[in-house]
Amino acid sequence: MRLDRYFPILDWGRHYTGTTLTSDLVAAIIVTVMLIPQSLAYAMLAGLPPVVGLYASILPLVAYALFGTSRTLAVGPVAVVSLMTGAAAGTVAAAGSADYIAAALILATLSGLFLLAMGLMRMGFLANLLSHPVVSGFITASGIIIATSQLKHILGIEASGHAMPELLFGLWTNIGQINGPTVAIGIASLLFLFWVRQGFKPLLVRVGFAERPADLLAKAGPVFAVIATIAAVVLFELEDSGVDTVGIIPTGLPPLGAPLFDPDLWLALAIPALLISIIGFVESVSIAQTLAAKRRQRISPDQELVGLGAANIAAGFSGGYPVTGGFARSVVNFDAGAETPAAGAFTAIGIAVAALLLTPLLQALPVATLAATIIVAVLSLVDFKTPVTTWRYSKADFSAMAITIAGTLLLGVETGVIAGVALSLALFLWRSSRPHAAIIGRVPNTEHFRNVKRHTVITLPHVLMIRVDGSLTYLNARWLEDYVLGHVADRPELKHFVLMCSAVNEIDASALESLEAINRRLADADVEFHLSEVKGPVMDRLKSSHFLDMLTGDIFLSQDRAFRELARRNGDADVPSADTDPNGPRGLI
Amino acid sequence: MRLDRYFPILDWGRHYTGTTLTSDLVAAIIVTVMLIPQSLAYAMLAGLPPVVGLYASILPLVAYALFGTSRTLAVGPVAVVSLMTGAAAGTVAAAGSADYIAAALILATLSGLFLLAMGLMRMGFLANLLSHPVVSGFITASGIIIATSQLKHILGIEASGHAMPELLFGLWTNIGQINGPTVAIGIASLLFLFWVRQGFKPLLVRVGFAERPADLLAKAGPVFAVIATIAAVVLFELEDSGVDTVGIIPTGLPPLGAPLFDPDLWLALAIPALLISIIGFVESVSIAQTLAAKRRQRISPDQELVGLGAANIAAGFSGGYPVTGGFARSVVNFDAGAETPAAGAFTAIGIAVAALLLTPLLQALPVATLAATIIVAVLSLVDFKTPVTTWRYSKADFSAMAITIAGTLLLGVETGVIAGVALSLALFLWRSSRPHAAIIGRVPNTEHFRNVKRHTVITLPHVLMIRVDGSLTYLNARWLEDYVLGHVADRPELKHFVLMCSAVNEIDASALESLEAINRRLADADVEFHLSEVKGPVMDRLKSSHFLDMLTGDIFLSQDRAFRELARRNGDADVPSADTDPNGPRGLI
Repeated sequence: MRLDRYFPILDWGRHYTGTTLTSDLVAAIIVTVMLIPQSLAYAMLAGLPPVVGLYASILPLVAYALFGTSRTLAVGPVAVVSLMTGAAAGTVAAAGSADYIAAALILATLSGLFLLAMGLMRMGFLANLLSHPVVSGFITASGIIIATSQLKHILGIEASGHAMPELLFGLWTNIGQINGPTVAIGIASLLFLFWVRQGFKPLLVRVGFAERPADLLAKAGPVFAVIATIAAVVLFELEDSGVDTVGIIPTGLPPLGAPLFDPDLWLALAIPALLISIIGFVESVSIAQTLAAKRRQRISPDQELVGLGAANIAAGFSGGYPVTGGFARSVVNFDAGAETPAAGAFTAIGIAVAALLLTPLLQALPVATLAATIIVAVLSLVDFKTPVTTWRYSKADFSAMAITIAGTLLLGVETGVIAGVALSLALFLWRSSRPHAAIIGRVPNTEHFRNVKRHTVITLPHVLMIRVDGSLTYLNARWLEDYVLGHVADRPELKHFVLMCSAVNEIDASALESLEAINRRLADADVEFHLSEVKGPVMDRLKSSHFLDMLTGDIFLSQDRAFRELARRNGDADVPSADTDPNGPRGLI
Repeated sequence: MRLDRYFPILDWGRHYTGTTLTSDLVAAIIVTVMLIPQSLAYAMLAGLPPVVGLYASILPLVAYALFGTSRTLAVGPVAVVSLMTGAAAGTVAAAGSADYIAAALILATLSGLFLLAMGLMRMGFLANLLSHPVVSGFITASGIIIATSQLKHILGIEASGHAMPELLFGLWTNIGQINGPTVAIGIASLLFLFWVRQGFKPLLVRVGFAERPADLLAKAGPVFAVIATIAAVVLFELEDSGVDTVGIIPTGLPPLGAPLFDPDLWLALAIPALLISIIGFVESVSIAQTLAAKRRQRISPDQELVGLGAANIAAGFSGGYPVTGGFARSVVNFDAGAETPAAGAFTAIGIAVAALLLTPLLQALPVATLAATIIVAVLSLVDFKTPVTTWRYSKADFSAMAITIAGTLLLGVETGVIAGVALSLALFLWRSSRPHAAIIGRVPNTEHFRNVKRHTVITLPHVLMIRVDGSLTYLNARWLEDYVLGHVADRPELKHFVLMCSAVNEIDASALESLEAINRRLADADVEFHLSEVKGPVMDRLKSSHFLDMLTGDIFLSQDRAFRELARRNGDADVPSADTDPNGPRGLI
């Protein structure tokens, strides 16, 4: 059973049939066609030779097929992770240098190791630190940066940088170098690709294609742009007119070997690798979950960490760079009928064949075409609607999103994510440090107790009753002391204080200490401290401490009993006595 | 009113009378007598010249009197902060060098600025990150380190270090240099001081002193050890026998001036200064709160940050080092009858007089005597009982305490605190990422719904009802998806899912996104998604989003209504219909 968990292939492999094989093969062929230009383009986006993108689409896919739990996730190079890889490698080496490629391999290996460690230690919960507004803001900002960074290829000019100010400054200063034929290819590719997204499928349907083949063919649109622009370059000898092309791509299978081991370099790349692994995981798992739910399948997030970890380690040992599940590609895989992770392994074979046979054909592929496919792909990531709805829903969440977008655009991807995570966490800790609490009173003629500020309720002058809507932890322990003692200090006539614990699921050691301090200080002020509606597990814990021995007051099973008993002790006659309790005795008090 | 908040002196100063003056003066004299040896000893513990301790006990006290909110807190050098100062200054300069003293001034200024900033920005909640187990473990470990570090002075040998392995190694290698007369003075002082704590007060009472004067005189015990050992050194010319003395203490008032401004040094000392300020604040505020509660007074934690910040900045500009509220000293101040912060200002005058007149008399004071006062003081900080009770109460809290103690003892004060804070936070986030949740059913013949695992309850085969005991936030949003979709995937006969939100105080944007994803995925699986018992403020928020428009199911005002309505829709006849609801209609559904 445990083996099943770590090797999902043992589960789905057992039921593999000829029909499944056919479905997986068809999906693999379609994904391969889509993945070839994508993998070249994303490698270029990461500042790496195009062939690295192909290498990253071979062994990593096989590794994920062995260890991943999603039936349909298509793993490989993706835009955001490519941007992050380029930004990180750029801090330790010059783009295109051997050290730069070595850094990309180290990033893949390191993020694979992080993912694997998190998976084996069941630490997937750390990915929760990336709240949805932070991820959404980060993706939008990354999309803007990526699209801007590709403009230079469309215009045929030089520019560099991983944040907007640099990028815009670079474009601005070199705008004079603009190359006419490159712009023509770039703009034509852009227009074609935008049209393919909207108009190609209806056209195919109109000329007689069935719905599903038309859809899949439309998704392969970029391939037509690739073929057409290669043809244009070859026919019109555009390389001589200054059109930049992919150039010679080495033919052959990925080089196997361990990444360079340089402790200083590994240390310098550790934080970026961690961010790459977490961002990649969060994106991948949400795609995998969405697709799994459509077929009432399940994925295991902890095992997904293992699967993606294995894929990245495979990338690091086979000349690739960091990979994760890609959205568009996975949807195509799903729609094309992939049934098991074997489809991914077949895609890997397809890419390997391409690396062996097709690379000479791609030599004349204009870089502007690849840039256009990137721009069209990433502009769908840019989302200006979510910031608006988030602003309307929650100012705190919006502020985390805003700082992520601003930080990413202005200071770079790592700073942006870290700022967003830090602000989300600070806001969460701040909210946790002051849970909602209310002074409560009894709703007349009921056993219900409600906030005195919102309802007309009965209170007793000698009794203060407070309900805290949350667990008592070290983050709010001091707040609790301030809150309770502040209200007590305001009311010199007070004799009893009741803490209603109906919403308290936990009392940690710090909060226990605070309850003891409250008890002591209330005793100094001659006020008895009572608790009511303490949950079973919390009560069990309290019994293991000395708190109950020193508590000056009582523990009441219900707030209503506390109210009636304390009213009786003070001789307030207008409150029904405990004898009339319709639910009968529920305990000592 | 705002001015009152930032200058508490405007409040208490208005009611200042001759009686208050007398009480404050008496308390100030007693605290001064106690503070003179303490300030010399703690400066020595920090590796600073003794006079720095006196300087740290003059202007900082005046600054706190102006801005602090505690009536009785006695500010000045304390043991733990002195240890932390020495550890931090030791990383940038050699103990005793001019740079070392400059580092201490920078630490005081920086921690003053941090405290002030936190106070003005109302960021006191950050101090919550130090959970009680972490603080308690840190204080115990610090006490052990401090006591061990003073053994060299008792033995008259050389040794250095700020963590146990170094300290013990230093003592071990130099044990041969042991100095007889020094050991005699050290052991005699230790025995005397231990006896003073226990036996002096009963003795004074027996010879006719009243209870309170006897108590205060006993607290001044260290002064007798100081006088007796000075006399011994002078009479027997022990300096010639190798007894180390305090030596010439410069006479005069504190030197005023800005601390050295060296950006690299400030940056290097930023983290230690932050830790010093937070540890100092946490300790000080808990003392101030304890004393305030005894007289039903209040302190304002945010204004305390301002008060302590001002005190530390004053220390940085007047030749001192980081200060905070001291426990023993504050209790003496309180017991001696101090009524307002003016007592602190009078203490400052007392110390200033001592700095002007008494320093020549202290020249022959043996270092061993000061070491003995430190050891006796800090051993009361060492607490082996709390780890045991914490272990019994909560393994998570114990683990945070254990890592703090081990980290502090073995790796040093900063590492210890940071490790403890990080582990506490990780455990908190882990717990927050998976709140308690239960599948619920109806308790027969009631409107109550309880966990199916703990109670005999009625459930419906087509309806899954889940109650989550906690707010839905970005930390548990993914868990919620997994939990709900996992249970749904297990039950193919399911038609309805009800999420009972009675304990949900908040739904943040990430959790809203997850609810939308759950809704979408349940729709794909033909399951309707309903909510019940949504709190008013949460409902208001949801209405500002589009979630309610896309929700496939209904919002039920009570779980009972949800149960009866969904039972009716499935034609389960054995469940009472909605018409029999004793509470009458409470809404649309």
